[in-house]
Amino acid sequence: MVRSAPLLPPSPLAPISDSNRLKIFSGSANPALAQEVARYLGMDLGPMVQKRFADGELYIQIQESIRGADVYLVQPTCRPVNDHLMELLVIIDACRRASARQITAVLPYYGYARADRKTAGREAITAKLVANMITQAGAHRVLAMDLHSAQIQGYFDIPLDHVYAQPVLQAYLKEKGILNEEIVVVSPDVGGVARARAFAKKLKEAPLAIIDKRRQAHNDVEVMNLIGDVRDKIAILVDDMIDTAGTISEGAKLLRKLGAKAVYACAIHPVFSEPAIQRLRGGLFEEVIVTNTIPVPAEQRFPELTILSVANVLGEAIWRIHEDSSVSSMFH
Amino acid sequence: MVRSAPLLPPSPLAPISDSNRLKIFSGSANPALAQEVARYLGMDLGPMVQKRFADGELYIQIQESIRGADVYLVQPTCRPVNDHLMELLVIIDACRRASARQITAVLPYYGYARADRKTAGREAITAKLVANMITQAGAHRVLAMDLHSAQIQGYFDIPLDHVYAQPVLQAYLKEKGILNEEIVVVSPDVGGVARARAFAKKLKEAPLAIIDKRRQAHNDVEVMNLIGDVRDKIAILVDDMIDTAGTISEGAKLLRKLGAKAVYACAIHPVFSEPAIQRLRGGLFEEVIVTNTIPVPAEQRFPELTILSVANVLGEAIWRIHEDSSVSSMFH
Amino acid sequence: MVRSAPLLPPSPLAPISDSNRLKIFSGSANPALAQEVARYLGMDLGPMVQKRFADGELYIQIQESIRGADVYLVQPTCRPVNDHLMELLVIIDACRRASARQITAVLPYYGYARADRKTAGREAITAKLVANMITQAGAHRVLAMDLHSAQIQGYFDIPLDHVYAQPVLQAYLKEKGILNEEIVVVSPDVGGVARARAFAKKLKEAPLAIIDKRRQAHNDVEVMNLIGDVRDKIAILVDDMIDTAGTISEGAKLLRKLGAKAVYACAIHPVFSEPAIQRLRGGLFEEVIVTNTIPVPAEQRFPELTILSVANVLGEAIWRIHEDSSVSSMFH
Amino acid sequence: MVRSAPLLPPSPLAPISDSNRLKIFSGSANPALAQEVARYLGMDLGPMVQKRFADGELYIQIQESIRGADVYLVQPTCRPVNDHLMELLVIIDACRRASARQITAVLPYYGYARADRKTAGREAITAKLVANMITQAGAHRVLAMDLHSAQIQGYFDIPLDHVYAQPVLQAYLKEKGILNEEIVVVSPDVGGVARARAFAKKLKEAPLAIIDKRRQAHNDVEVMNLIGDVRDKIAILVDDMIDTAGTISEGAKLLRKLGAKAVYACAIHPVFSEPAIQRLRGGLFEEVIVTNTIPVPAEQRFPELTILSVANVLGEAIWRIHEDSSVSSMFH
Amino acid sequence: MVRSAPLLPPSPLAPISDSNRLKIFSGSANPALAQEVARYLGMDLGPMVQKRFADGELYIQIQESIRGADVYLVQPTCRPVNDHLMELLVIIDACRRASARQITAVLPYYGYARADRKTAGREAITAKLVANMITQAGAHRVLAMDLHSAQIQGYFDIPLDHVYAQPVLQAYLKEKGILNEEIVVVSPDVGGVARARAFAKKLKEAPLAIIDKRRQAHNDVEVMNLIGDVRDKIAILVDDMIDTAGTISEGAKLLRKLGAKAVYACAIHPVFSEPAIQRLRGGLFEEVIVTNTIPVPAEQRFPELTILSVANVLGEAIWRIHEDSSVSSMFH
Amino acid sequence: MVRSAPLLPPSPLAPISDSNRLKIFSGSANPALAQEVARYLGMDLGPMVQKRFADGELYIQIQESIRGADVYLVQPTCRPVNDHLMELLVIIDACRRASARQITAVLPYYGYARADRKTAGREAITAKLVANMITQAGAHRVLAMDLHSAQIQGYFDIPLDHVYAQPVLQAYLKEKGILNEEIVVVSPDVGGVARARAFAKKLKEAPLAIIDKRRQAHNDVEVMNLIGDVRDKIAILVDDMIDTAGTISEGAKLLRKLGAKAVYACAIHPVFSEPAIQRLRGGLFEEVIVTNTIPVPAEQRFPELTILSVANVLGEAIWRIHEDSSVSSMFH
Repeated sequence: MVRSAPLLPPSPLAPISDSNRLKIFSGSANPALAQEVARYLGMDLGPMVQKRFADGELYIQIQESIRGADVYLVQPTCRPVNDHLMELLVIIDACRRASARQITAVLPYYGYARADRKTAGREAITAKLVANMITQAGAHRVLAMDLHSAQIQGYFDIPLDHVYAQPVLQAYLKEKGILNEEIVVVSPDVGGVARARAFAKKLKEAPLAIIDKRRQAHNDVEVMNLIGDVRDKIAILVDDMIDTAGTISEGAKLLRKLGAKAVYACAIHPVFSEPAIQRLRGGLFEEVIVTNTIPVPAEQRFPELTILSVANVLGEAIWRIHEDSSVSSMFH
Repeated sequence: MVRSAPLLPPSPLAPISDSNRLKIFSGSANPALAQEVARYLGMDLGPMVQKRFADGELYIQIQESIRGADVYLVQPTCRPVNDHLMELLVIIDACRRASARQITAVLPYYGYARADRKTAGREAITAKLVANMITQAGAHRVLAMDLHSAQIQGYFDIPLDHVYAQPVLQAYLKEKGILNEEIVVVSPDVGGVARARAFAKKLKEAPLAIIDKRRQAHNDVEVMNLIGDVRDKIAILVDDMIDTAGTISEGAKLLRKLGAKAVYACAIHPVFSEPAIQRLRGGLFEEVIVTNTIPVPAEQRFPELTILSVANVLGEAIWRIHEDSSVSSMFH
Repeated sequence: MVRSAPLLPPSPLAPISDSNRLKIFSGSANPALAQEVARYLGMDLGPMVQKRFADGELYIQIQESIRGADVYLVQPTCRPVNDHLMELLVIIDACRRASARQITAVLPYYGYARADRKTAGREAITAKLVANMITQAGAHRVLAMDLHSAQIQGYFDIPLDHVYAQPVLQAYLKEKGILNEEIVVVSPDVGGVARARAFAKKLKEAPLAIIDKRRQAHNDVEVMNLIGDVRDKIAILVDDMIDTAGTISEGAKLLRKLGAKAVYACAIHPVFSEPAIQRLRGGLFEEVIVTNTIPVPAEQRFPELTILSVANVLGEAIWRIHEDSSVSSMFH
Repeated sequence: MVRSAPLLPPSPLAPISDSNRLKIFSGSANPALAQEVARYLGMDLGPMVQKRFADGELYIQIQESIRGADVYLVQPTCRPVNDHLMELLVIIDACRRASARQITAVLPYYGYARADRKTAGREAITAKLVANMITQAGAHRVLAMDLHSAQIQGYFDIPLDHVYAQPVLQAYLKEKGILNEEIVVVSPDVGGVARARAFAKKLKEAPLAIIDKRRQAHNDVEVMNLIGDVRDKIAILVDDMIDTAGTISEGAKLLRKLGAKAVYACAIHPVFSEPAIQRLRGGLFEEVIVTNTIPVPAEQRFPELTILSVANVLGEAIWRIHEDSSVSSMFH
Repeated sequence: MVRSAPLLPPSPLAPISDSNRLKIFSGSANPALAQEVARYLGMDLGPMVQKRFADGELYIQIQESIRGADVYLVQPTCRPVNDHLMELLVIIDACRRASARQITAVLPYYGYARADRKTAGREAITAKLVANMITQAGAHRVLAMDLHSAQIQGYFDIPLDHVYAQPVLQAYLKEKGILNEEIVVVSPDVGGVARARAFAKKLKEAPLAIIDKRRQAHNDVEVMNLIGDVRDKIAILVDDMIDTAGTISEGAKLLRKLGAKAVYACAIHPVFSEPAIQRLRGGLFEEVIVTNTIPVPAEQRFPELTILSVANVLGEAIWRIHEDSSVSSMFH
Repeated sequence: MVRSAPLLPPSPLAPISDSNRLKIFSGSANPALAQEVARYLGMDLGPMVQKRFADGELYIQIQESIRGADVYLVQPTCRPVNDHLMELLVIIDACRRASARQITAVLPYYGYARADRKTAGREAITAKLVANMITQAGAHRVLAMDLHSAQIQGYFDIPLDHVYAQPVLQAYLKEKGILNEEIVVVSPDVGGVARARAFAKKLKEAPLAIIDKRRQAHNDVEVMNLIGDVRDKIAILVDDMIDTAGTISEGAKLLRKLGAKAVYACAIHPVFSEPAIQRLRGGLFEEVIVTNTIPVPAEQRFPELTILSVANVLGEAIWRIHEDSSVSSMFH
C-alpha cells in the first residue's frame, strides 16, 4: 500500500514564482516518485528522450529548451546502480551543455553509500567517487534523503540539502495508535545505534535495545545477543535500509524468542535484494514499513508491507530551494 | 579462430627493469585479453577480489600491496558498458588510495566513443564525460586502441597513448595472399572515408569506393548508392567497429549486386549487438575479420569469423611506457 | 561584395529585456563583423581601450562598468592568431576581474582548429590547449561558428553553442537560381566527405563526388583522382575553410578537365593565406563564395569573390542566449 | 608515565634505502612525539626556523635543501588548533615551493574531526574544510591516526594511510594482566558503540554495555541509563578521545553505582580541556590510559594517568610508506 | 577619537533594491566596524552563533536562512591572525553549504600580506596560501582595503575590489588646515617610496623625502640617513601599517634632529604590536593618524592618537557591488 | 660585446647523473642563449621541428622520445611576446602529451610582468593570466630570472626558482675597477628604489639617489627632480629592464646637469623598444650594461653597449634542479 506523507500540506502555500524556469526531469530509476513530486508542485515532468542503443549505451535528449532554467533531476541510484548512476551523469552533462542555470541532482536513495570508508587495505571509497562524479559532471547542488552516514554530506563541496523521511514514518506509527502501547526501539546491529536512538527520541524517549552479533570464543559460531530488554513490549526495529533482510529477520526472531509482544520493521529505503522478500514475508513481522525512495515492483509486495510516500517531503524541499527559503526548518 | 598478432616479437627484447613495480590488473570485461597481455610481458595478472553485492553494487579489493607501483588496468568498456566503466573507476579509486605511483587505464575499446559531439540540441557529449570521469577518478595516463574519432585524444589532458590494430589486420590479409588480387577498399558510409582511405594507403594504394546512403527526392525511400567501382574486384569493407552490422551487411549486398568478386569485412572492435550475427553469417561475406579488443562469446562465433589478437600490440605498448621508450615508433 | 545573411529577420522580434545588462565588445580581429552583430541587436559596441605598448604587449581597459553584465566578446582567432587569441584572453581576464556576470567568447572562426589530434608522436593538440586557455581565463560560455571538427565541442566543459553558416550559403545559391541546374557537390579531399554530404543533402539530395589524391605506386607522383561523376554538371566544391587554396584549385582544374560545366567554391572561413588569391582569381572558378567570419582586406578581393555576412546568425544567437531561448531551433 | 608502544620492533628491520631523501620535520604541536618518531627511524628531525612575529603571524624557514626529498611533517592539530593547523599549512606551502618530491602530513590527532557533518542548518563541515585546505596547500598524502569517524578518509582524494593506536592500548592492558579478569567494555554514549564493539572484539569478544543519556518525559531532566550489565565486572570505558571528560566521568559514576568492580578509561587522544583533569583525578578511575598523540603538559598529569607512546606505530608507518611496503598489514 | 569618514554621503543615495537578499555578517575580529558598515547601509548585522568549544575549536551557525542571498562577511584578519582567518573560512564554508548565492569576504586588513614573496630559500608565500584558502573555502569575491602590495590582487582569480582609505586620511588632514603649511611627505623606508609618492601627489604634489637605513662599512652599525630635506617643514610619515612602530619612531627622531617643525604619522592599519604604543606615545609625534580597519582597544589609546573610520568607504563599496555599479569610480 | 658570466665555474663540478633523462629544448625566442646554457651543461639542445603554417599557426614536433625525461624549455617571452608565449605553451602541451616526467619552463625574461596589478578599473592582470596559462598547459615548475616584481612568484603554486643576474653585473663592474671610485646608485623612478637599494647594498653600501618626476602645481609641466646627491660622483642608474629608455635617458641628462662625473646604466633585460637605441647611443652614457636574457640584434648594438651572458647562472640552476641540490645557495 502506498500512502502519501501526511506531514506537509498537499501543495505549496504560495504559487511558484518564475515557474517557467523550474523544471523537473526523471531518470528511469523511479518515474512514479518523480511524477508524484511534480504533482506536489503542480507541474508535469519535463520531456526527455531516454533510450538505450543496441549495444547498451544510454542516449538522452532533453526535449525542450532549459536554457537558464532551474533543473531538478530525480534519480535514486538504486539497482541497477551503475546504469542509474551513469544515466544521472549523462543527463547532468546534457543539462550543463544546454545551459541550465542550476542543476540539482535529487537522490532519494544514494547508491554505494555504504562504501564510505576503507575497512581494509586497497579498497575504494566508492561513495566519495560517486560524489566526485556527480560534482564533476556539472551538478550545482544535491538534494539527498537519509544518507547512510551523515558524513557523506562532506563528500560534496557543492551545497547539499539533506532531508529525512523519519517524520513520514513516525506520523504513520502515530496514526496507527501504536505509540500508545509500551514500545521499545531496537537497533539491529551496533552500527545503527545512533540512528535508532534518534528515532526513539522522537517517540517520547522510548527505551532502546541493541542486537549485538558476536562470535563465541569456544566454537567460533556467531550468535545474536540482545543488550537491553524487550519482554512484553512492542519492538520496533529501525534501520535506514533493508537490503537482503538477513540481519533484521534474524533480529526479529531473537526479539520474538525474548518475549516481544509484536515486531515492526521501519526503514527508509527498500533495497530488497534477494532473498529479502522471502525473509520478510510470512508473519515474522506485524508490519514492514518502508518508503518509496526506491520503487518496489509488484512481485516484491507482500501483505505485511506498507510503503509510505516521500514525494511531499521532496516536493516541498524542491519548492523551498527554488524559492530560496529554508529547508532545514521543515524538520524542526 | 583467435590468432596472435604476428607483427611484433613474441616477448620484449630486453628484460623489464624494476619489474616488481609493474603490475597488470584486469577488470571483468576481457580477462582473456588481459591474460594474453600479461603473458606477452612474462607476468601474471595481479590478484584482485571483484564481486557484486546482492544489490548489484561492485566491490573491489586489490590483494597485494601496490604502493609505489606502476599499475595497468585492462578494461575495454564494452557491454554492459556502464558496469564496465564503473568497475574501471572503482579500481582506479582503489589504486589511487592504495598509493600506486602511476595508474594507466588500458582501454582496448572505448565505450560511448560515438557520443563525441552534439548532433542536436540538449544532448550530452558522453565520450567527454567518460574522459573526465577517468581523469577525475585518478588515472594518470590512458592507453587506448583505435578510438572512433582521433579527437577523443584531446578529451584528455593526461597523456594518452593511441595504438592501432590496423597492422594486425593487414598482416593477416597479406599472409592470406589476398593482396595479390585486384582489391578495392570500400567505406560503408561517408563518415568512414578517411579511415578507409588510410587503410587503402597501406595496401599499396588500393583504390577506394564509398557507399552513400541517400533519400530519393521523389519517394523519400533511402537507397544505397556506390561512388566508385567494384566490378570484378575483391572488395574489403573497412570500419572501426561492427555494431548491429546493418550498414555493413546492406553494403555487402550492394557490392555483390554491383559485381564484386568477393566481399571481406575488416573491423577492429566486434561490438556485435543484436542482430549482428544473423546479418553477418550465412555467406554474405567471404570472411569477417575482427580483433579481440572485445570478447566474442562462443554463441556469437560463426564459420566466416576470424578473430585476431591485439595482445602483443598492447603488451608491447605497456612495456614501452614502463621503460620510457617510444610508443609512436611502433607504427612507423 | 558583402551581402547580409537573408535567412533571419533583420532584427529580433521582441525587444531585449534588461538590455542594459547585455554588452558586446569587439577585439581587434574583426570589428566590422562585431559592428554588424551589434547593429542586428540594435546596440552599439561597448567602449574599450585597446593598445599595444612599444614592446608589443597588449593593454586593454574596458571603458564602462560591466559589473553584473552579460558580456559577449566577438573575436575570431584568425591571423595573426597568437595576437588575436591572447587579446581575447586578456579581455576575458579584464571582464572577470571587473565582475561581469557572464562572459561569452564569440568565435566566428576558431584558430588552431585543425590541430585537434596527434597525427604523429610528440605533437601538441593545440585546439584543446586553446579551449583550456579560454576556459581557464574565465569565459563562462562559447559561441562558435562552423568548427573544423564537431568534436571540438567536447574540448569545452562550459556550454558551447555551435552555429552554422551553411544556411547563409545555401540561401544565396538558391537566390542565384543555381539550384535549378544539374549540380554535383564535390568534396576536395577524403577528410571533407561528411561535410560535403551534409551540404548536398540540403540541396535536394544532390549527388556527391570526391577528389582523392594518391601517390601512384610506380613513380611516387601524387595524382588526383575523382570518385564519382561531374561531366556536364555544375560542380560545387564545398569546404569549411580556404587556406592556401592548393587543394581546391587543383580540384577545380581536375573538375574542368573531367567536363564540369562550371565550378563554384563554397567555404565558410576565408583564411586566404599566401598564395590563395593568385590561385583563386583568374577564371578557374565561376564564383568563390565565402563569409565574413574572417575579414578579407581590399587587396585580397577579386571579381569572382562573394562575401556573405553571418552577422545575423551570430546576432540572433546572442539574442537567444541572452533571452534564454533555444539556439538549436535556429537550424531546424 | 610515558611508555613506548611494545607491538613493534624497536627499529625497522631493514636499513632505509635512499635515506638522504627521507626527511622528518616537526611543527610546534608535539615535538617530543616527532622526536621519538625520528628516533625510531634512526634519524634526526630536520632543521627549521619557526617563529612568530610580534603581530602573531607565523614564519617558517626550512634550514636545509629538501629538493626532491620525501618529507614527513608531524603535527597533530590539537589546541591551539587554528595556530597548529595554520602552521602545518605554512610548512606544507614552504615544502611545495622548495620542490619537495612528496609531502606527507602526519596527523596523530585531527582537529575539528567532530565537525564532520551538519547537525543543523547553516553549519560548516569544518573537518572537510580542513581536508580541503591540507590538500590545496600541497600535501600529497596524509598519515592519520584514529580519526573520529572513518568517513573522514573520504574527505581526501589524495592517499591517506589510517593507523591505529588500539594495539598499543590492548598490549598494555594485556601486559597488566587485566584481561584475565571478567571484563566488560562500555561505550560512554550511543555514538561510540561501534568503536567499543570493535575494541571488545579484540579482547576475546568481551561483552558490551552502553550508557544512554536521555531526557525523562515528566521533568525534562537528563538521566543516565545503562543498557547491558556491569555488576562485579571490570568496566573498561572506551572512547577515541577525552575532551572535557564530562560524559566519561558521569559514566564512571554510574558504573560504580551499578556495581562495577573497577573502572578503567581507555582513549587515544588526550584532548583534556577544562575541567577534564579535575573530573578524572581523585579516584573515580583505577586508571586513565591514553596515548601521546597530543602532548600532556606536566600540570595535567595525575597519578592514575598512563600515557602510552604511539611513536613506533607512526615511525613504522612512515618507514613503510617511504619503502613502498604495505601499511595495512601492520594491523592484521 | 574615532571619526567617521567624511568623503561620502552618510547613506547611499538610492534605496537598496532587493534588500532582503543582501546580508552582512561580522566575524569576531572587528564587530564595531561591521556594525558601522551595516548602519551605513541602513541594515542590521545578520544573526550568527559564534563560539569556541572548551578545546578551542570554533563553531559557527548562521541563525537565519541565507539561501540565495548576497552575503558580505566583514573580517579583518588581524591578531590573533590564525583564529580570525580560520573563523572567516568556517563562516564561508557555512555560507556555501547554506546556498548563499554570492559570498564576499570583506577584508579591511589582510593578515600575512607581507609574506608575499620568498626572500630566502624554503620560505612560504603565506599571502598566496591565504588567498588560495579563501578561494577554496568558497568565497566568490573579495573586498579588500589597502593591500600591502598591489600584486596581491593577482593572488586571486575571483574578482577582488580594492578600496582605499587614503581619501579619508587626506580629508582629515585638509580639514585640520595642515595642508596650508609647508609640508614634506616622508617614506620611513625604501620599500614604501611609491606609496609615499602617491600620497604626496594628492597633497598638491608635496615634496618627498626618504629614510634609508644602512649598515656603515667600518663598524657594521646600522644608521639612518635621510635622502631629501625636511628642515622647517611639517613632516608627514606615511605608511600602510604601523606594526611595532620601530622604523617609524626611529624615523621621527631623525626628522626632529634634522629640523622638522612637526612630525605626523599617517597609516591605514593600526597593527600596534608590542612595543608600538610606548614608542608612539610621549610626544614624538604631533599626531598619529590611523583608521579603524583593526580595532584599537582602550588600553592602546593615547592622547596623540586619532582613529578615522573607513566604514563609509566599505559600506559604499558593498552597496555598489550589490547594485552592480562601479567601485573604481569612488576614487576618481 | 657579449661576455660570459664570471661568477660560476665554466661547467658543473660533478657529472650529471642519469643524464639521458635531462633534455633542454629551445623555443625560437633566444636560441643563442639556450645553446650557451646547453653548452654549460655539456649537452646539445634537443631536436624539435618548429614551424609556422602559411596562416601563421605554430607547429611543434619534438624529434626524439622524451618519455620519462626531465625537460627544460628555454624561452624568454620577449617580443613578439604573444608568439613566444604561445609557442612556449604549445611546446609544454606537446611535452605533457609525450609523457615527459617533469617540464620546467625556463623564462629568462617574463613578458607582461609589469601588468601585475590593476591600476585602474576593468584592466586585466595579465602577468597572472600568463602564470595560469603556463601552469594549466602542464608545466611542473618555472625557472625565472629577475622578475619585475618578486610577488609574481606567488602567481604560481608550482615551484618557481628565482635566479638573479645581479652578481653577473656586479662582477663586471668590479672587474672594470669602477668600484674603487666614489659612486652613487640612482633609481630612475620611485618604483625602483628598493631594487636600487639592494644593488647599492652589494656595492659596499654605496649611497642612493632617486629621480622623482612630478608635475609642477602652477603650470602642470612634469619636471624631474633628484632626491639625494650625485655631484662629482660616478652615477650608476639601475633598473630591471630598459624598454623605450625614456625615463633612464631623461634621468641621465639630469644627472649630468647636476654634476655627475660619469653615468652608467645597468639593467638585466634589454627590451629595447623603439626609440630606445637612439636615446641610449651618442654619449649620454659612459656604458650601458645589460644581459642576454633577450637577444639584441646586430642593428640594435652601439659602441657603449655591453652585453653580459647569464647562461652560466641558468645552466647552473638547471643542473642543481636536476640534481636536487639547492638553488638558493647560489646567491649567498
